[in-house]
Amino acid sequence: MMNFKSDNIVGVHPKIMAAILQANSGTEGSYGNDSYSLALKEKFCEIFETEVAIYLTSTGTAANSLALSALVPPYGGIYCHEHAHINTDEAGAPELFTGGAKLISVPGENGKLDVDYIRNHIEAANSLRPHISKPACISISQATEYGTIYQPDELKEIAELAKFYNLNLHMDGARFANSLVTLGVSPATWKSGVDAMSFGATKNGAMAAEAIIFFNPQDAIEFDYYHKRGGQMMSKMRFFACQLLAYLEDDLWLQNATHANSMAVALREIFAKHNIEIAYPVEANEVFVRLSPKISEYLYKNGGGFYEWGTPGCGLYRFVTSCFTDQKDLQLLDNCIKQCNVI
Amino acid sequence: MMNFKSDNIVGVHPKIMAAILQANSGTEGSYGNDSYSLALKEKFCEIFETEVAIYLTSTGTAANSLALSALVPPYGGIYCHEHAHINTDEAGAPELFTGGAKLISVPGENGKLDVDYIRNHIEAANSLRPHISKPACISISQATEYGTIYQPDELKEIAELAKFYNLNLHMDGARFANSLVTLGVSPATWKSGVDAMSFGATKNGAMAAEAIIFFNPQDAIEFDYYHKRGGQMMSKMRFFACQLLAYLEDDLWLQNATHANSMAVALREIFAKHNIEIAYPVEANEVFVRLSPKISEYLYKNGGGFYEWGTPGCGLYRFVTSCFTDQKDLQLLDNCIKQCNVI
Amino acid sequence: MMNFKSDNIVGVHPKIMAAILQANSGTEGSYGNDSYSLALKEKFCEIFETEVAIYLTSTGTAANSLALSALVPPYGGIYCHEHAHINTDEAGAPELFTGGAKLISVPGENGKLDVDYIRNHIEAANSLRPHISKPACISISQATEYGTIYQPDELKEIAELAKFYNLNLHMDGARFANSLVTLGVSPATWKSGVDAMSFGATKNGAMAAEAIIFFNPQDAIEFDYYHKRGGQMMSKMRFFACQLLAYLEDDLWLQNATHANSMAVALREIFAKHNIEIAYPVEANEVFVRLSPKISEYLYKNGGGFYEWGTPGCGLYRFVTSCFTDQKDLQLLDNCIKQCNVI
Amino acid sequence: MMNFKSDNIVGVHPKIMAAILQANSGTEGSYGNDSYSLALKEKFCEIFETEVAIYLTSTGTAANSLALSALVPPYGGIYCHEHAHINTDEAGAPELFTGGAKLISVPGENGKLDVDYIRNHIEAANSLRPHISKPACISISQATEYGTIYQPDELKEIAELAKFYNLNLHMDGARFANSLVTLGVSPATWKSGVDAMSFGATKNGAMAAEAIIFFNPQDAIEFDYYHKRGGQMMSKMRFFACQLLAYLEDDLWLQNATHANSMAVALREIFAKHNIEIAYPVEANEVFVRLSPKISEYLYKNGGGFYEWGTPGCGLYRFVTSCFTDQKDLQLLDNCIKQCNVI
Repeated sequence: MMNFKSDNIVGVHPKIMAAILQANSGTEGSYGNDSYSLALKEKFCEIFETEVAIYLTSTGTAANSLALSALVPPYGGIYCHEHAHINTDEAGAPELFTGGAKLISVPGENGKLDVDYIRNHIEAANSLRPHISKPACISISQATEYGTIYQPDELKEIAELAKFYNLNLHMDGARFANSLVTLGVSPATWKSGVDAMSFGATKNGAMAAEAIIFFNPQDAIEFDYYHKRGGQMMSKMRFFACQLLAYLEDDLWLQNATHANSMAVALREIFAKHNIEIAYPVEANEVFVRLSPKISEYLYKNGGGFYEWGTPGCGLYRFVTSCFTDQKDLQLLDNCIKQCNVI
Repeated sequence: MMNFKSDNIVGVHPKIMAAILQANSGTEGSYGNDSYSLALKEKFCEIFETEVAIYLTSTGTAANSLALSALVPPYGGIYCHEHAHINTDEAGAPELFTGGAKLISVPGENGKLDVDYIRNHIEAANSLRPHISKPACISISQATEYGTIYQPDELKEIAELAKFYNLNLHMDGARFANSLVTLGVSPATWKSGVDAMSFGATKNGAMAAEAIIFFNPQDAIEFDYYHKRGGQMMSKMRFFACQLLAYLEDDLWLQNATHANSMAVALREIFAKHNIEIAYPVEANEVFVRLSPKISEYLYKNGGGFYEWGTPGCGLYRFVTSCFTDQKDLQLLDNCIKQCNVI
Repeated sequence: MMNFKSDNIVGVHPKIMAAILQANSGTEGSYGNDSYSLALKEKFCEIFETEVAIYLTSTGTAANSLALSALVPPYGGIYCHEHAHINTDEAGAPELFTGGAKLISVPGENGKLDVDYIRNHIEAANSLRPHISKPACISISQATEYGTIYQPDELKEIAELAKFYNLNLHMDGARFANSLVTLGVSPATWKSGVDAMSFGATKNGAMAAEAIIFFNPQDAIEFDYYHKRGGQMMSKMRFFACQLLAYLEDDLWLQNATHANSMAVALREIFAKHNIEIAYPVEANEVFVRLSPKISEYLYKNGGGFYEWGTPGCGLYRFVTSCFTDQKDLQLLDNCIKQCNVI
Repeated sequence: MMNFKSDNIVGVHPKIMAAILQANSGTEGSYGNDSYSLALKEKFCEIFETEVAIYLTSTGTAANSLALSALVPPYGGIYCHEHAHINTDEAGAPELFTGGAKLISVPGENGKLDVDYIRNHIEAANSLRPHISKPACISISQATEYGTIYQPDELKEIAELAKFYNLNLHMDGARFANSLVTLGVSPATWKSGVDAMSFGATKNGAMAAEAIIFFNPQDAIEFDYYHKRGGQMMSKMRFFACQLLAYLEDDLWLQNATHANSMAVALREIFAKHNIEIAYPVEANEVFVRLSPKISEYLYKNGGGFYEWGTPGCGLYRFVTSCFTDQKDLQLLDNCIKQCNVI
């Protein structure tokens, strides 16, 4: 395999698959009224060091969109990075699930929000009320779409801004584990001011299991309605809950992320060795590089799996590692670049 | 087990679980670009005897709502039985996904649509255009919410009505297999005029796998957008496609349904033996009965799992069988009623 | 004129037109920040004997739909009569503006809600939460679509039900003035438990002016956003506010309604005299009768303007009077029926 | 008056008011089935030199949002300038009426779209289908939010791009007349490739009357449903149609616009005389200037009506002229700046 297209092209971690098998016994309450969901709720409260409300979804798009739908009114504005997944890769799902809330594209270096831009926009919006969508939420991705990570002080600055203007703070945590192991901090992002997060597991070893976590359960008192109405209340929910239980058990999630991140660092070293430009700091499990047409074409031709990113033809390429990436994958890529350079 | 609450409280059929395990090997394209999805598409074309377009979802609610969203404009009206699942059990999901289309409650005996009522409503709506939602779709459930089945001539009458007025015809097939084995007909409902269906597998042995089938692929040329935007384009789609492949392989779906239906007939016999009124013809895997408070309370107290149906206190109760229901379950229920009758 | 099609086929009352002319002078703040809107707000507070929040719209459909959008969550259920205007004559506007809330058709005699039906539905919905849309609002029409009127004790019963289950109570007052003059009560419906109403003026002499009235201004603290986003924040709002000011001035609204109602009673007497069946009590400005094909055709042929109501061919017909209807109109109709009866 | 806040703070042109008065006679069909609407339809066909479908609204926000709702699917993307009215001043109305379509902010000088940016985005979106909203429409404002005007060749370039990629082209013509008199071209924008436009009259002398014009009536065959459902089908439509009839009669609209534009030019000269920076070319009836805090505060204090534009504190200010602006207004402003400069 020399496939760095995404962390969702791989399969399921054996421990998670084992948990699915084990859950297949006897009857259980449906729609989340099962013993696995109950245990998972407790596990999440423990990990996040507070009482949380949790709801599972089968996709990250659903997790993000449903979470946002509970955090903003339909006339609300959601500040997100111009390259945020919710803004560019979910085909308008946030607009659908929120009933038409407005995503406001925010610029910012390295995939991180420009806080001043948001502040100015909020001020303008409030002064022109109600002609501009009501500033209602800031959504950040941790890690970002560019594989970078908000440092604690950066997160704090955004959280303070949100709090000052009475906005909710949402975190898209599709690659949350990858950011945690880099930062070496507690998962309890609510302490920094996050109100709700999309907690991803699929990209880090699960089959299909994402969780929406509300750190203030009061925000979620009617979320069961959103969940059901959003088509995400799976009837045999135990098979989704058990995935996350296994994912959290014995820090499997952190181990997987640690591995994926280290593979990304190794990948970066390979590119650097070949004098290929690294476009963004490598802080999680993604590496963005600028490839010459010669190299990109050679890699494609020789079975390399990866995507061009952004405007077609711009020369920026994304490589993603996962908990399954191994030294052999890296070796293959290294060799391929070498061969290309000698021809 | 004496649990007849639903066909979704049970686990996954061993053959389907084996298929999931087997799919967990190597990399595959994400979002449906995998070999399992490809094979499934071919299998469905074969079973339905025509070229179809298929999209998978993790819930039946999503399958129904997304299918409808492609069949009606947001200003459209959808005729459905007043007790249809889309009308009473999906928390407004069809309204969300269709962008606010209107579900029009249609009365009718045994859970089946009153065709004259629909015809009159369409005539009135068209004559008062545009003040009434545009008649756009008829949605039927096969089997119905009351475990009854549209006979071929009944289906034909509805299809002709739909065709005459240029409406689409949608079938909620959450228990489609159960209806097929009773009728002994081909699955090719498009020959009767069905335009799209929600093809359920979860209630009949799968883990979480439903398919939206478009019999006229032209209706689905942009459905990939609906699918993604609806939060249902699972990234590791292979694990959903493989469930349906195993489900269809060697007629497992029909065998499972045959078993569940036979258990329902046996259940009906037990109730009849005890002079308990059967509320609707038992044609699939559901039995509706009228229980006295004495019996219902006794059954509940002794571990019986089942739901009261409709208005609380009305005395109507639903019992559902599944591919896992066995003679012992029936025996336990029989004994329990006997004991109740002697005290 | 022998045109009883509706109370919206006539023009504008001279006093209201004069007010529009008079408002056309100098500059005024736009979007409701004008002196007329300010004065109107005060006038409404006086008439309703409490602090209210008001927002104007150009149609009754917008007034109803926007009001409801602030009273129910998108996953909410709205109980309304099966023949309510919001359910049958607004082409799905409530579904659009509420983001997909569900209108639940309630049966009931004479166009009035069956309270027991609603109670049972709420009980069932709450017990099956979240599978059924959350019971969120009851909407009544005063006068009803059939020209009947809720008596104070009937309104009280509904309001108590709403309060008991924590639902909002909305009143569609497209013909509110007509109901008031019949009942001879204060307009302060909030004392009976109404939370918000659509206050109609267009059908009773205005050009295009409806008001959404919130009796608990707390419900409307962000309604400016709904108003703007709903496309109803007219820039030159003074020309809408001045209509309502003139409408309320010197009880013009009540005088207009008194006249229209008295014409309806006279109309009823004409029908009764000719032994034509009156279908519903005549309590406002509408008369519903059952006409033989012979009479209905003769009337149509001789220039009679009126509509068949409900199912095409059912023989039920609606006649509406307005503040402009006069004795000559009635005389023409009387003569026409006489002529028909002798041929 | 020294009020340049907007062209909607003034009243109604006397000829339009006279038309309203004149329309107030006898009965007319409701909801657009009146003689005025019929005549207006013909007048528009004549002016636009082709068969058009027209629908009236009471606000420009409704006109834009409803027009777009017929031009894009709910999963569609709408390219518009980052400062377009639909993107920044309509509180999310386009998102509401389109069922959640995505507005994509496009940069560009002088309020005009950067065509290359759009082309690149479309290419990326199509290559990543269906993860990015489907490119469905380009919306331009003529004149733009900054009072500039697309020249024929600029419009042609955008239209060709739209056509090449099969997108619809919408024009927000809130100040369409102002652009026409500057360009001196025919109103028949469809010849340049515009599919539908919002035709504004309120800012140019009407009371409340905007028209949605479809140049390809096929696009509008079910628009009556959108119109009604959007709460914009005014019952006494004649009073809106007659405004537009008077507006178009004897080129009143062009005369009004010619006057407003000339006042803007005169305003620009005053600012230039005082060495105040003009921010954008003055091509319609808006002048944007950069004012020092001293001048802006002095003007505010002395009764000047105008708005700061964009980020609060940025120093950019907008002045708008209308068909009612006269030399005295300009003189007052000129004097005020003079006085400020000497203190």
